Amino acid sequence: MIPVRGYAAQDARSPLTPFQFERREPGPRDVQLEILYCGVCHTDLHMAHNDWGVSPYPLVPGHEIVGRVVRVGRDVTKLKTGDLAGVGTMVDSCRTCEDCKDGLEQYCKVSGVLTYGGREKDGKTVTQGGYSETVVVDEHFVLKVPANLDPAAVAPLLCAGITTYSPLRHWKVGPGMRVGVVGLGGLGHMGVKFARALGAHVVVFSHTDRKKQDAFRLGAHEVVVSSKPEEMAAQVGKLDFILDTVSANHDVNAYLELLRRDGHLVLVGFPARPLEVTAVSLLSRRASFSGSGSGGLPETQAMLDFCGEHGIVSDIELIPIQDINDAFERLHRGDVKYRFVIDMKSLT
Amino acid sequence: MIPVRGYAAQDARSPLTPFQFERREPGPRDVQLEILYCGVCHTDLHMAHNDWGVSPYPLVPGHEIVGRVVRVGRDVTKLKTGDLAGVGTMVDSCRTCEDCKDGLEQYCKVSGVLTYGGREKDGKTVTQGGYSETVVVDEHFVLKVPANLDPAAVAPLLCAGITTYSPLRHWKVGPGMRVGVVGLGGLGHMGVKFARALGAHVVVFSHTDRKKQDAFRLGAHEVVVSSKPEEMAAQVGKLDFILDTVSANHDVNAYLELLRRDGHLVLVGFPARPLEVTAVSLLSRRASFSGSGSGGLPETQAMLDFCGEHGIVSDIELIPIQDINDAFERLHRGDVKYRFVIDMKSLT
Repeated sequence: MIPVRGYAAQDARSPLTPFQFERREPGPRDVQLEILYCGVCHTDLHMAHNDWGVSPYPLVPGHEIVGRVVRVGRDVTKLKTGDLAGVGTMVDSCRTCEDCKDGLEQYCKVSGVLTYGGREKDGKTVTQGGYSETVVVDEHFVLKVPANLDPAAVAPLLCAGITTYSPLRHWKVGPGMRVGVVGLGGLGHMGVKFARALGAHVVVFSHTDRKKQDAFRLGAHEVVVSSKPEEMAAQVGKLDFILDTVSANHDVNAYLELLRRDGHLVLVGFPARPLEVTAVSLLSRRASFSGSGSGGLPETQAMLDFCGEHGIVSDIELIPIQDINDAFERLHRGDVKYRFVIDMKSLT
Repeated sequence: MIPVRGYAAQDARSPLTPFQFERREPGPRDVQLEILYCGVCHTDLHMAHNDWGVSPYPLVPGHEIVGRVVRVGRDVTKLKTGDLAGVGTMVDSCRTCEDCKDGLEQYCKVSGVLTYGGREKDGKTVTQGGYSETVVVDEHFVLKVPANLDPAAVAPLLCAGITTYSPLRHWKVGPGMRVGVVGLGGLGHMGVKFARALGAHVVVFSHTDRKKQDAFRLGAHEVVVSSKPEEMAAQVGKLDFILDTVSANHDVNAYLELLRRDGHLVLVGFPARPLEVTAVSLLSRRASFSGSGSGGLPETQAMLDFCGEHGIVSDIELIPIQDINDAFERLHRGDVKYRFVIDMKSLT
């Protein structure tokens, strides 16, 4: 076994503290990464605090991992020592169900294994995440990172990036389409960059005008302050597609009304409470309200390649791991532009 | 003006009573029908009772009209005197917006005119429905009725029929697909007939096992009693498409879970209160929750032609118009298999 240092939550209420644990030695198909950077996703905060009631402790969060390959198993063909590589929200799945065969491992209901707080397919070993110095992952779940991008700013692409890229591609967002992005946080700011790069007309919806200039800088063509009824009214029936990145409770009907006939509103945020949808919001324009969860491995690689071609990365604030509890506080308040990334050098 | 006898609600609380009113003389593009039969839609009940707060009085309900053409305007080309014809939920629209040009007049936001309780494009004349002896409608909104079908049982096709046919066609239901139909009433029983005729494997969801034999007779391959958790559990992840015909408040999440990845649940019922949708129901399988409202004129004609080819009509209970208030009572209790149709001969 490999001894690993990281930061863990020991229970739902305590701050994260230094923690020593072990990972398996790389098997024939495994890749070992020295972790360079790890993004701080809102999920990390929810899981550390056991907001969803499923957190095992001790818990090492982190599923936006960028690192350097330091060892590969004998059957590994995809990567070699020295490569820059990434690991996202999953580290294994059944590989045989229809979803896995379609390269949409995130929907595997048989034995999808989350990067942290999950259980390996042995049913026992609890997975630990990227707030640590090294990780061992089957090569199928390791991505190649384009060399021309800032690797720290690549880290958030592994979750925030693919979570917004996947629905934009699945619903075929492109030139000639008017696309709304609701919420300008870790997910939303990536949604704006991708929708713009895909050639759409991008309308950002933000609750206040505080982030207006930022939205334009990130690529928005229009910014709507959603708390101003007259600004919302001007968008009624105008949008082909809306990417809803809001995890707080909110009125989706107000956004469904903005869709043209046959438009789609896709939720990628994760509100804890159910959202109320009125029949008329859907019936009066044959609208659809859908959801999309991260992305499969082939599409995650395609997203990274797309980012390499278009020079797209996340806007980040780099922090030492010793500041993680303060970062959690600030993330909880929405005080980050737009993603914290831990510089893992700080662990030494 | 043409004097017309019918039955009207004079206010939200009184029973329907005989009522005399007037319709316009047919203009160059108008068709006048002698009404033979009119279906009794749940909407008629809601509108008579002003459940949606928009009912003008006196109100003559009825938007499932089958009749004989007795006069045509000089520019009418689609129909001639003596033809059997139908009128559904709409009698006019703007004709120029994108929805109208696409033949989806039901989504016209400019000036769609409902068959009753609406306003003609003059902004003044209140429309009156099919619980009456004659109607005058622009030929664009008049359908040809296949000669080989029982005209009384055709009447409900004009609303219940097209409302279920349209989403089944839009979402491309066909052979190889497993299709759920939730609720076995006026809409649901048509959904079962259409889904079966389109070649799908049909699973009916009913709250009790009271209608089980009926469901099989109508075309179901399987019947699930939705109040039995073990029967619901056996369908998880198994359906490609669900047609939800329930207008009462209900748990759509329980049905979203039954969808395969990328499946669609389409609401055609009209629950008065918002429905609660959890993020996980949508995100965990990229499911969509959509709605669909009746159908446009070209598709309504296609539906009638399809019914002619496949010998499909509604299961009906024919009543004299003098029994309409009793029929409303029974409809309110769900005590009808599966649609009341008024025999307009009874008016004389």
